[in-house]
Amino acid sequence: MQTLLLNADDVDENARTDRVIEAVRGAFAAYERGDAIMPAKSYVDLPEYDGDFRSMPAYLDVREADTAESTADGGGWDAAGVKWVNAHPSNPADRDLPTVMGTMIYSDPETGFPLAILDGTTLTMKRTGAAAAVATDHLAVPDATSLGIVGAGVQSYTQLEAIAEVRDIEEVVVSDLDEERVAAFVDAFGDRFDVRGGSVAEAGHCDVLSTVTPVEDPIVDPDDVGAHTHVNAMGADAAGKHELADELLADAAIVIDDREQCTHSGEINVPYAAGTLTDDDIYGELGAIVVGRLAGRVGADGERRGDDGDETSADDGLTGVTVFDSTGLAIQDVAAARVVYAQADDNDNGYPFDLLGLDG
Amino acid sequence: MQTLLLNADDVDENARTDRVIEAVRGAFAAYERGDAIMPAKSYVDLPEYDGDFRSMPAYLDVREADTAESTADGGGWDAAGVKWVNAHPSNPADRDLPTVMGTMIYSDPETGFPLAILDGTTLTMKRTGAAAAVATDHLAVPDATSLGIVGAGVQSYTQLEAIAEVRDIEEVVVSDLDEERVAAFVDAFGDRFDVRGGSVAEAGHCDVLSTVTPVEDPIVDPDDVGAHTHVNAMGADAAGKHELADELLADAAIVIDDREQCTHSGEINVPYAAGTLTDDDIYGELGAIVVGRLAGRVGADGERRGDDGDETSADDGLTGVTVFDSTGLAIQDVAAARVVYAQADDNDNGYPFDLLGLDG
Repeated sequence: MQTLLLNADDVDENARTDRVIEAVRGAFAAYERGDAIMPAKSYVDLPEYDGDFRSMPAYLDVREADTAESTADGGGWDAAGVKWVNAHPSNPADRDLPTVMGTMIYSDPETGFPLAILDGTTLTMKRTGAAAAVATDHLAVPDATSLGIVGAGVQSYTQLEAIAEVRDIEEVVVSDLDEERVAAFVDAFGDRFDVRGGSVAEAGHCDVLSTVTPVEDPIVDPDDVGAHTHVNAMGADAAGKHELADELLADAAIVIDDREQCTHSGEINVPYAAGTLTDDDIYGELGAIVVGRLAGRVGADGERRGDDGDETSADDGLTGVTVFDSTGLAIQDVAAARVVYAQADDNDNGYPFDLLGLDG
Repeated sequence: MQTLLLNADDVDENARTDRVIEAVRGAFAAYERGDAIMPAKSYVDLPEYDGDFRSMPAYLDVREADTAESTADGGGWDAAGVKWVNAHPSNPADRDLPTVMGTMIYSDPETGFPLAILDGTTLTMKRTGAAAAVATDHLAVPDATSLGIVGAGVQSYTQLEAIAEVRDIEEVVVSDLDEERVAAFVDAFGDRFDVRGGSVAEAGHCDVLSTVTPVEDPIVDPDDVGAHTHVNAMGADAAGKHELADELLADAAIVIDDREQCTHSGEINVPYAAGTLTDDDIYGELGAIVVGRLAGRVGADGERRGDDGDETSADDGLTGVTVFDSTGLAIQDVAAARVVYAQADDNDNGYPFDLLGLDG
């Protein structure tokens, strides 16, 4: 019995974007239906090192109806694992190391055997892009062609790659104070899209906006976004951090990935803690839209999804500005790991290793 | 930056028993002093597979005073990591796989980098033996020379190896319904000890007894143990399981590894849930004895330990039957992983692997 080791390149090569999106969509559906087990993240806070660790275990059991026909997952599937991830913000400046490094153990739920150990850093980018794509698919205007991105760091690349799978993106505006990062982003995608650097407001007036910054104080004001822009707020990942002005949130339909995580450390955590944003201001969880219990954007997904009896129609649905508050769920990691493991195994990628000594 | 992969053989070869015991002793001390962070185990219960997963993260910061001079750890140290471990009791019969398989990620707390990934199955045996040794060192009669073991499965081997480091064990009695397992155990240790198979009562009348069985109903009665036997109750690891009769516990001094875990799933969980054993019946946690806040066995450790002002003397202390209720703590895994990683790194053992792609 060998455990498959999948390094950063292996994860990158085997995380087919369309499949990761469908797996993550299935994860949100399973979570909504109660077919997932996701204990709260365990935090190990280390103020003496200006850092922390998080342990993110999960199991999910995805129904066949929640997986798109175009993927390899013709039937339902289940999967389990844990991601162990740190956040040490002073790493880049002090140690020439990334702020965030992750390691994922992907296990067979039937036997408990660790099928694979994956670079969790690349995996996190892939599953985060996929969550934005699932939200965009259900919340952006159907004919969206433009995408703005605020923050041109490592997470920005998978935002474009994934969102371009669910909308016919032609025009991309990337905004970052660091011109070198903007130039690198334009270089990376210039051959596939009409990409240019621009202001926050120029990015925000695209049909879709993704914010992927670590800022603590909001940088996107209400007049920075268009009348029907869908915003993926990806950056906030700790209490005290937010990217969008309170007034923008107040006028938007807010969709969250998970109530506990979002109110604790997501985009809404600051106004929620202050009491200026309450449960009544939250439209619902993304999973409820994925399974059709809540309507998404008018025309965006009414006829595509909803195998439940209470499915929504395309007529009732959201208009105006929508915001997806993404904190990142352990079920996304497990779903993405499943895609990577299955494809790497098919392709004979990775390094089989008898970690547990069961072949001896 | 390479992550060191350490398989079952690597863990076995580099888990020097004396060093693991001292590291685990330090872990109990750090935990007692509040110098450890150990979130509650997260359980992922999968009744459809008759199994579960547990995520066990921890950080600990051990003082120099808690490490023995004879070890490589001259100074204090800190360490972090997570163990992901399953329990699928039908694995051996149905799938020719072990019931329990573990994977450990050992990380640098200063940077978050995953220094090593270890076979967590072998590691669990080593750190479990070490916990029994720490307890035995503080709770068994100082001149103990005989050790009984009930249950000759995989965990029994490290019980003898570790306990022989803290007492001059000469005679060993091993009791198991499976004669082949008894013979294998005798074979393994016959050259170093006077080992023989025997009844539960014969094992229990040794100076020290370790019970390492998965039984749900008690198999050790009060008259199965000697007047001064120290019992390491290692087997119970889930609600509803216990190895010792209630009457034995009622008359013994009960030392636990952790109040929350022991009352939930340790040796005492059944009578505790029934209300026949209460908090008043628990003498204290092992860490309190290690740091000298509570007395151990008379004469066992009075003059060795206790750098606190409130140290105990050899005069006040426990007599009669003592029981150590061991559930297994995440801090033990982290402490043992540190020993294995440090020694493997020194010896150029293991397989360096650029999991995170930081060398690219």
